[in-house]
Amino acid sequence: MSWNENRLTSMLGIQYPILQAPMAGGITSPELVSAVSEYGGLGNIGAGYMQPEEMKDAIIKIRTQTSKPFGVNLFIMLENVKASQEEEKTAANVIGRLQHELQLETIPKLPEKDYRKLYTAQAEVLLREKVPVVSFTFGIPEKELVKELKQTGAILIGTATNLEEAIQLEESGMDAIVAQGVEAGGHRGTFLEEESGLVGLFALIPMLTSQLRVPIIAAGGIMDGQAISASLMLGAQGAQLGTAFLTCKESSAHSVYKQAILDRKEDTILTKAFSGKLARGIKNKFMDEMQGNYILPFPLQNDLTGAMRKQAGTLGKPEFMSLWAGQGYRLAKELTVEELMEELIAEADKAFQSAAF
Amino acid sequence: MSWNENRLTSMLGIQYPILQAPMAGGITSPELVSAVSEYGGLGNIGAGYMQPEEMKDAIIKIRTQTSKPFGVNLFIMLENVKASQEEEKTAANVIGRLQHELQLETIPKLPEKDYRKLYTAQAEVLLREKVPVVSFTFGIPEKELVKELKQTGAILIGTATNLEEAIQLEESGMDAIVAQGVEAGGHRGTFLEEESGLVGLFALIPMLTSQLRVPIIAAGGIMDGQAISASLMLGAQGAQLGTAFLTCKESSAHSVYKQAILDRKEDTILTKAFSGKLARGIKNKFMDEMQGNYILPFPLQNDLTGAMRKQAGTLGKPEFMSLWAGQGYRLAKELTVEELMEELIAEADKAFQSAAF
Repeated sequence: MSWNENRLTSMLGIQYPILQAPMAGGITSPELVSAVSEYGGLGNIGAGYMQPEEMKDAIIKIRTQTSKPFGVNLFIMLENVKASQEEEKTAANVIGRLQHELQLETIPKLPEKDYRKLYTAQAEVLLREKVPVVSFTFGIPEKELVKELKQTGAILIGTATNLEEAIQLEESGMDAIVAQGVEAGGHRGTFLEEESGLVGLFALIPMLTSQLRVPIIAAGGIMDGQAISASLMLGAQGAQLGTAFLTCKESSAHSVYKQAILDRKEDTILTKAFSGKLARGIKNKFMDEMQGNYILPFPLQNDLTGAMRKQAGTLGKPEFMSLWAGQGYRLAKELTVEELMEELIAEADKAFQSAAF
Repeated sequence: MSWNENRLTSMLGIQYPILQAPMAGGITSPELVSAVSEYGGLGNIGAGYMQPEEMKDAIIKIRTQTSKPFGVNLFIMLENVKASQEEEKTAANVIGRLQHELQLETIPKLPEKDYRKLYTAQAEVLLREKVPVVSFTFGIPEKELVKELKQTGAILIGTATNLEEAIQLEESGMDAIVAQGVEAGGHRGTFLEEESGLVGLFALIPMLTSQLRVPIIAAGGIMDGQAISASLMLGAQGAQLGTAFLTCKESSAHSVYKQAILDRKEDTILTKAFSGKLARGIKNKFMDEMQGNYILPFPLQNDLTGAMRKQAGTLGKPEFMSLWAGQGYRLAKELTVEELMEELIAEADKAFQSAAF
């Protein structure tokens, strides 16, 4: 059984149609990203919340560790979301009350942040550093940026959770599209109608491959080689795995977070409690307590819960951390990237050979 | 490419690992069920709401049309759900107001029904008629019934939407388990915790196959042969298709309902508005209008909306019908069962041969 090139792998210049999802929030260390690329997949930096200097440092470090292609993911943040003082106070008081048991006495305050400016600066880094693959979440990049990035030779990837988003992304010039199934951990990439952005991969992949010309990358709940084979069967040209790489030794996810995944206790649910945007994670106390409470829009709620999440990590209290994980997270293992990649490839080969046909 | 026997197909005595989902509510005509079985799959009667005499007639008719195995599905209804007069009045007034534009002037009333008794009578028919395959939705059948059905030689299939349900069903003696992914049309089979019963097939199949010994049947959003292959890749031994068979010429689904599926207009969403139990269907006006309104528990709400749904069918108004459909419904076609089965098998073969490995 050989892994033939397909349109996606030849476009990206990678050996296997396996992408490591660009998880934002301190998970995608240069070691993780470079190892995935080095072993034949595509590593991706989740740069959504990163400062330009951090991004640049990470890109330089990755390049010292591999000469293979890698990607960087940006959140599309074209405008600054605002909250009134009243709204901020209401949301902050809820968190202030709940974080009491973490020995945090002060009510949280929104920091002064200019997300639009951050996004522009992040995009500048990608242009200057000529990053080989650039992916986007939460929307469609502006025409000018698409043009400039293409001039640097970058391959561009959009993220869609339903057909309409995928069509708009293709029209904007994206070279490939991640089909984010409802199974996926972390934030929903949905940027059009929210209720239509919760489609399982078994329906989402065929819907997208039947309507679009660009290659589709399946994402959501994919944890093993069998699932990679299955997504190729459905017409995807690649599979993107988040949670499976999150527990790898090279990942810089907080140890308390990794352990919560490996403990396999609760199911995952969708919540806006941590960030203001719908995201899937392992059910915990904070999600429960936030039911029915006032929540600021993304990314403001994320800023407001930042100190609490950090303190929870320090104190080893997963009950107050955002334990983003896909629906298949119980299959996560603590391996090196090399071990995981070898396992995925062997499982996919075996699935093809032994399928009950 | 040959279709080898697997544990499921040999247990059921069928040629292809393709099951027609037992859709309740007048869809699974004897013609549909017998044609699916005749062409090598497993046809299933959705008997949940059927009277014992109707069931018996359907079974006899199927047996005149095919000598191959077929199945009958029951809803587990071990106790009668009750509503107070006050609750009934509140729910009925909401529907009374909304059904006004259907020229229905009277406020609906709950009929006198004994669902526990109906369920017992339905089970009696299965025992007397020695139905080859019996499947269950919404719970676990009683020990005594499991024993008696097995004595008639029946193969028993349970329906699970999460791991815990699947484990309990296996322990109860089920011979195979349908893994109902969140993609599925119609009622969620969930009978334990509701929020943990919305798992996509990419996560649900591996979770179940890794923990259970009995064969797993994938259900939800499967519309073509590629998806059948993909579910086998993931470890399932069979695939169950509902919506794909619903628009077949032999199906007795209302013509307005079939047309709404073939029109491909709105996305599907999950709602309790029609029946009191969470179910997936094409979004329409009734679902919208019911947002935030009081709803009786299943099956009472279903009884209360019965006249309205019927009248909507008569008047050709899909906006007030329960248009149950899976997330992949846009791929539905109007074919005969023979044509659909041939297409599914050819697509699955081709997917295996041309997979981009």
